[in-house]
Amino acid sequence: MSGIQKLLRPRSVAVVGASADPAKTSGRPVAYLQKHGFDGRIYPVNPKASEIGGLRCYPDIRSLPEAPDVAIVLLSAQRTQQAIAELAAMGTGAAIVLASGYSETGDVGARRQRELREAAGSMRILGPNTIGLVNLTDRITLSASGALEVDELTSGAVGLVSQSGGILGALLSRAAARGIGFSKLISTSNEVDLDLADFVDALVDDPATRVIALYVESIRNPRTFRAAARKAAAAGKPIVAFKVGRSASGAQAAASHTGALAGADAMYDALFDETGIIRAQTFADLLDIPAALAGDRKLGGNRVAVLTSTGGAGTLVADSLGVAGFELPAPDAATGAALRALQTGDHAALDRNPIDVTLAGLQPDLLRNAIRIVLESDQYDALVVIAGSSAVAQPELMAGALRDSLTPDGKPVLAYISPHAPRAAEVLSRYGVPAFAAPESVGAALSAMRRVQGGKLSGVRAVRPVRDGTPAHAASPATVEPHKALDEAQAKALFAQFGIPGVREIIVNADADADADAEAEAEATRAARALGPRVVLKLLSRDITHKSDVGGVAVNVAPEDIAQRLRQMRIDVRQHTGKPPQAYLVQEMVTGAAEVIVGLHHDPLGTAILLGMGGVVAELVRDTTLLLLPDDGAALTAQDVEAALRRLKTWPLLDGYRGRPTCDVPALVQAVLAFARMASTLQGQLLEAEINPLFVKPTGQGVCAADGVVVMKD
Amino acid sequence: MSGIQKLLRPRSVAVVGASADPAKTSGRPVAYLQKHGFDGRIYPVNPKASEIGGLRCYPDIRSLPEAPDVAIVLLSAQRTQQAIAELAAMGTGAAIVLASGYSETGDVGARRQRELREAAGSMRILGPNTIGLVNLTDRITLSASGALEVDELTSGAVGLVSQSGGILGALLSRAAARGIGFSKLISTSNEVDLDLADFVDALVDDPATRVIALYVESIRNPRTFRAAARKAAAAGKPIVAFKVGRSASGAQAAASHTGALAGADAMYDALFDETGIIRAQTFADLLDIPAALAGDRKLGGNRVAVLTSTGGAGTLVADSLGVAGFELPAPDAATGAALRALQTGDHAALDRNPIDVTLAGLQPDLLRNAIRIVLESDQYDALVVIAGSSAVAQPELMAGALRDSLTPDGKPVLAYISPHAPRAAEVLSRYGVPAFAAPESVGAALSAMRRVQGGKLSGVRAVRPVRDGTPAHAASPATVEPHKALDEAQAKALFAQFGIPGVREIIVNADADADADAEAEAEATRAARALGPRVVLKLLSRDITHKSDVGGVAVNVAPEDIAQRLRQMRIDVRQHTGKPPQAYLVQEMVTGAAEVIVGLHHDPLGTAILLGMGGVVAELVRDTTLLLLPDDGAALTAQDVEAALRRLKTWPLLDGYRGRPTCDVPALVQAVLAFARMASTLQGQLLEAEINPLFVKPTGQGVCAADGVVVMKD
Repeated sequence: MSGIQKLLRPRSVAVVGASADPAKTSGRPVAYLQKHGFDGRIYPVNPKASEIGGLRCYPDIRSLPEAPDVAIVLLSAQRTQQAIAELAAMGTGAAIVLASGYSETGDVGARRQRELREAAGSMRILGPNTIGLVNLTDRITLSASGALEVDELTSGAVGLVSQSGGILGALLSRAAARGIGFSKLISTSNEVDLDLADFVDALVDDPATRVIALYVESIRNPRTFRAAARKAAAAGKPIVAFKVGRSASGAQAAASHTGALAGADAMYDALFDETGIIRAQTFADLLDIPAALAGDRKLGGNRVAVLTSTGGAGTLVADSLGVAGFELPAPDAATGAALRALQTGDHAALDRNPIDVTLAGLQPDLLRNAIRIVLESDQYDALVVIAGSSAVAQPELMAGALRDSLTPDGKPVLAYISPHAPRAAEVLSRYGVPAFAAPESVGAALSAMRRVQGGKLSGVRAVRPVRDGTPAHAASPATVEPHKALDEAQAKALFAQFGIPGVREIIVNADADADADAEAEAEATRAARALGPRVVLKLLSRDITHKSDVGGVAVNVAPEDIAQRLRQMRIDVRQHTGKPPQAYLVQEMVTGAAEVIVGLHHDPLGTAILLGMGGVVAELVRDTTLLLLPDDGAALTAQDVEAALRRLKTWPLLDGYRGRPTCDVPALVQAVLAFARMASTLQGQLLEAEINPLFVKPTGQGVCAADGVVVMKD
Repeated sequence: MSGIQKLLRPRSVAVVGASADPAKTSGRPVAYLQKHGFDGRIYPVNPKASEIGGLRCYPDIRSLPEAPDVAIVLLSAQRTQQAIAELAAMGTGAAIVLASGYSETGDVGARRQRELREAAGSMRILGPNTIGLVNLTDRITLSASGALEVDELTSGAVGLVSQSGGILGALLSRAAARGIGFSKLISTSNEVDLDLADFVDALVDDPATRVIALYVESIRNPRTFRAAARKAAAAGKPIVAFKVGRSASGAQAAASHTGALAGADAMYDALFDETGIIRAQTFADLLDIPAALAGDRKLGGNRVAVLTSTGGAGTLVADSLGVAGFELPAPDAATGAALRALQTGDHAALDRNPIDVTLAGLQPDLLRNAIRIVLESDQYDALVVIAGSSAVAQPELMAGALRDSLTPDGKPVLAYISPHAPRAAEVLSRYGVPAFAAPESVGAALSAMRRVQGGKLSGVRAVRPVRDGTPAHAASPATVEPHKALDEAQAKALFAQFGIPGVREIIVNADADADADAEAEAEATRAARALGPRVVLKLLSRDITHKSDVGGVAVNVAPEDIAQRLRQMRIDVRQHTGKPPQAYLVQEMVTGAAEVIVGLHHDPLGTAILLGMGGVVAELVRDTTLLLLPDDGAALTAQDVEAALRRLKTWPLLDGYRGRPTCDVPALVQAVLAFARMASTLQGQLLEAEINPLFVKPTGQGVCAADGVVVMKD
């Protein structure tokens, strides 16, 4: 058995620093192990006690009768390192370190954490600063969490990994109250060794786990995380993740729009999208969605019946489902007739959906039959039953009727509890019917079920064969000198080397010292005649990337006006920057093309290509998407790029919207692939790169980069 | 006393159709009145009983000893009308009709509802199909809701009006479990007479009500509702509304973009914005936000301290606050020193925010002191305290410490309960500390408090003096013949009559029967020379409004190319529509202007002007806002229009974004006011009107309408 397997299912557990007082935190692990029925060997270690909880207590680690599978270390940070070294030396499988005072506290703690890692050698460590691990499947509690005070732990099919111990306790407590069961609960916290990815990987292999729930603060190792997430997708085990830290502002890159558009949170969206992870939008979703996915019943389509005995709540849930894109067809003739035959009372509304069965809500037989009719109807793919006020006093009433009506692998059945009736929700959950107190959760849960339709996750990017870890399609090495920032012409020259054409343009050098610059004006006029009938005149500079901010861009200029316009620009730029331009760029004027932004974004999570509606409005409209570059040495495919483009709200602009010509999407896709190749080839050298706009011309006419930003490592 | 005042605070209540069996629905009202302590006179009416609940029972309405202030009518719909007529005849103040089978069931029911209204005469009616009304301030329960089975009702400062009886029961049940008290609970349901607006108006006058919560299905009388909402704003009583029906698709107008952009739900947003109503984004917010607003403590700024003893939950709440735009400054030197002096343990993190006091979470004295230090610090405007796992076993621990630390009108203090600890939440609420189980609710509640800062609602449009109910600024009556649809040139002529200039353009008539059309080509060439150097060529038609969809728009055409381009358009349009154009429009080509959409939107809630980013991308970018026209005969003001424009994400495009010229916003504002005047003047005649794009040129150069749609009543 590997260290992580021993950790998840130990046969022997040493508790180092165990207290004989179960009220103390250090007294809890032994007490919990016993209380919740661990049937392996427990070795308390404490020099001051001879017996704890009826078990022989060992004075020190060396006295232990065997190398334990797992050691829970309850010592202070100061004393932990020595204990870890001793445990590692005797061949312990894994240690759980509860002490805090490590990297979460600053530099001194970070050093201590590195020393801990060294002391452990090949022994695996969970923590430090962790609340531990609970294997509910096998009733093994390796934790000091007060949430384990409960008399009984509900085991289930949800495996939870949390980067916060406190959140793990909160979720356990909330789930217990709702009858939601877990398979494994793991708090990874400081992750000196074992991390999120390790446990995702292990839970994919755990037969008791059907759904993986993650509370994420920060993914420290994106490469292994992506691999583990892809393994889960391939195994048909959905992952639901809540990521805290949405309010964190992304790193602002100085020169390009990309930095402002691609925040840290958007990168997590991209990562989750790519690996098929369902993102919990609210903290409550982190329990609600896994609870819904843990069942056997798969959603086969988009049509939902809502069965209610209370009108208002039915409307509320129907609205939530409508917002989530579900259809609520009214009962057809046959279904309606079958429901009417039940005689559910004068005021039942059986010809619409929500189907209001009024009195049936209080009559289990009627309710059972109504449920059966809906479940048997071909019209519906799922059923949501609303529990009304009767659920408060009679929590078993509807739950019992529902339980009797369910077939093990039939359509999904969910419940919404309208009043405050926690007991009804709990009973329903235990019967396998996910029950929700928030109408929005019903829509979120069914949406998640739709994504895992038929056991296959939609939207997961295919895993490609790894090509020896080297970037694919390696282009010829760049010959451009590594500067700090390239000017626009140089940037486009670099793009062109990788196969992305630029607009036709001519550089006009200027005499920055002269009062007037007749020579530049004459040169610009000649250039405009060559590139006209209309051209764009721009300031050319390495330092000033936001040219339009300083009056450095003029569009739609006729050759006869360009001298005058250049004179004006000279004045404007000097006014804004203190010095006149040293060079200008005269460019052909491209019209009738769509404008796209293509940017490079580096982030701790990986490198991504930003795609979106381009032009000067890019930052206002913010219609962008991020495409993570593969981390396995493979290249992006044309399918990846086109799928990303289709996610844009303004995708229709590329696709012949409202009589516009269809744009050359194949050329755009090739340009994006070339941009990605450039990023792979130049790797660490390329700090920033952005094309905005990239003009996408009508089909067959290709693309051209109209402006570009490149910042290279110095 | 008016009928509605009697209804809210009756001294005598007749219960018509009362049952002696309190288990029956019709037995509940008398039982509840007695149980919850109504100290007025109760008159059960039932021919089959002589006594109910120890009270004398009357055989019929005529036998009653007095005209009651309120009659609760529990009869079937068939028998209700007669009872209502009798109650009205004897001078009853108001009747509450519980029967269903009225307008909610279709045409027959709707007729029955009209007859009910007639039978009531001047007597006020609540319902039909209502669950009734509860005055918790005075312990008067006029309802059959099973939610009143509870032993004790918590009175408080939130007045709730619900258009669904079931939802009212659900909210009462949920609030009770959380210790949230109501002043009045009213279910208006079918609203044959008294409606949402009547009760908003009454609750503004109710001293016990500080916050009004609304569950809205549909506002039937927008004019009185807007007046009541403005009265609440003027009185400093915030309204929080949850509107069900977001998924309902807006009415699709055929000819204009406006219909697709201004859905029914966006109109509610506009109405709520205009009247300062806070929209609950989730159903849970409908309790959470009013609970937070009901207290005395006002939020004076944007800086929040989070005090926690459990790291993970602190991060979660901090994130929610960050997303909501709050600042979380770290404690300054003085505050930090004061906290450190408490000696809250080694692992406390007192130099950051969330402020982690670790052990203080279990030591009331320490916690009290930490709370006091934060509340006394000038650094913070509000405090959020996190309750950790100790809240499960010791719900009073933190609640007690908090209660002792509060001053009646100091800074707001809120609590977040991390584990499942409903009892702790309830106790905190009862102590006046709003307590939340969802981290998102903390951000939503504090955001709402920020909107009512200092007791004044932000964003409420000023109430203008009513000008005799007639539209202001009445323009000269339109002289255009009322057609079904105007063509583009006619539409712009109409706009011009109201003072909105159009682009320069020349109509070119075509010979639709000829094979070629040399005459039109020549005419177009002459027009292009007059309007050039570049022009726009368009199909001109009354029937085809989406011209670009059929190949009927060509931009940037040179005079020498226009003949060829016209020939092509003739082919394209015939291909799409089956017949060639009968006329063309040659227009000047406007460049360098911002493009705005201005549309008219009729809705049951009122008439609105849609403003947004215009052009062909309007429907993709969907950056629009709605501006409701005043319903009081007053006109929009320039301030109203500019405030609406500033709400647009793309507002910077009008305001000199990135070196662009500043646009002529004053001219745009005048054009929008002119558009609104046109709408007021033509009133019911004008079915659709839209300018898209309206070009907004640089400052001083004005605006011009480049395209327009008008549909008049036939």
